Amino acid sequence: MDCVFCKIAAHQLPAEILYETENVVAILDINPIHYGHALVIPKTHCTDFLHVREVDLHDVLHVTQIVARAMVESLELEGFNIFSNNGKAAGQSVFHFHMHVTPRYPDDDIKFVLTLKTYDGNAMATYAEKIRRHITN
Amino acid sequence: MDCVFCKIAAHQLPAEILYETENVVAILDINPIHYGHALVIPKTHCTDFLHVREVDLHDVLHVTQIVARAMVESLELEGFNIFSNNGKAAGQSVFHFHMHVTPRYPDDDIKFVLTLKTYDGNAMATYAEKIRRHITN
Repeated sequence: MDCVFCKIAAHQLPAEILYETENVVAILDINPIHYGHALVIPKTHCTDFLHVREVDLHDVLHVTQIVARAMVESLELEGFNIFSNNGKAAGQSVFHFHMHVTPRYPDDDIKFVLTLKTYDGNAMATYAEKIRRHITN
Repeated sequence: MDCVFCKIAAHQLPAEILYETENVVAILDINPIHYGHALVIPKTHCTDFLHVREVDLHDVLHVTQIVARAMVESLELEGFNIFSNNGKAAGQSVFHFHMHVTPRYPDDDIKFVLTLKTYDGNAMATYAEKIRRHITN
């Protein structure tokens, strides 16, 4: 398996480890959005959020909360984002599921450039029904 | 409590509900990044990710996975993001924790404008140690 996150999880590649449990490792991103930018990674390989096992998903979010709290306190943050990119179209670059935790500062240099859309007529109901028809537990 | 998400969770305000469990409701965002953009919201009020109860965090992520899967299949997506903004500096506008699920398309109009940073010398180790000292389980 030639996966960089699998190798980090197995301690076969160096990383600045912030926290580690049986199922999860949290590290610093080597190319941070802001200093302190962390990644929370399940040790068991899975390509993305749709394929992560329930036990790993639970542990990833629990550790994300622990790391975010420590980040807020240690860096005296006024805000942070957590996010996961899934698929190349969404900006995913390592195809092993991971959650980003990024420090944020008032008026920092991170801009999300996009145009919010509005729904006309019954378009919103149509989209909702389309998605609801594909819901499976 | 004058919280719009509490009112939606209590069915006191209208919303296009995609899915609902005992603890969580998933709705369409009325100002989507792309059509189908969803929000997953715990019914119990909490301001942000650091304050969400463990049971609610677990259920929010479980429902986020269900909604993301249905979104990918129904809209034939090549990618999606999940994210949560925490604090005004991070773009949070409703101070009741929620997870966004956004469809993404190749070369769409959403741009993240930022400058990735690099760590010089032992800066990475210093940041890691600073955060690790504040880790509490």
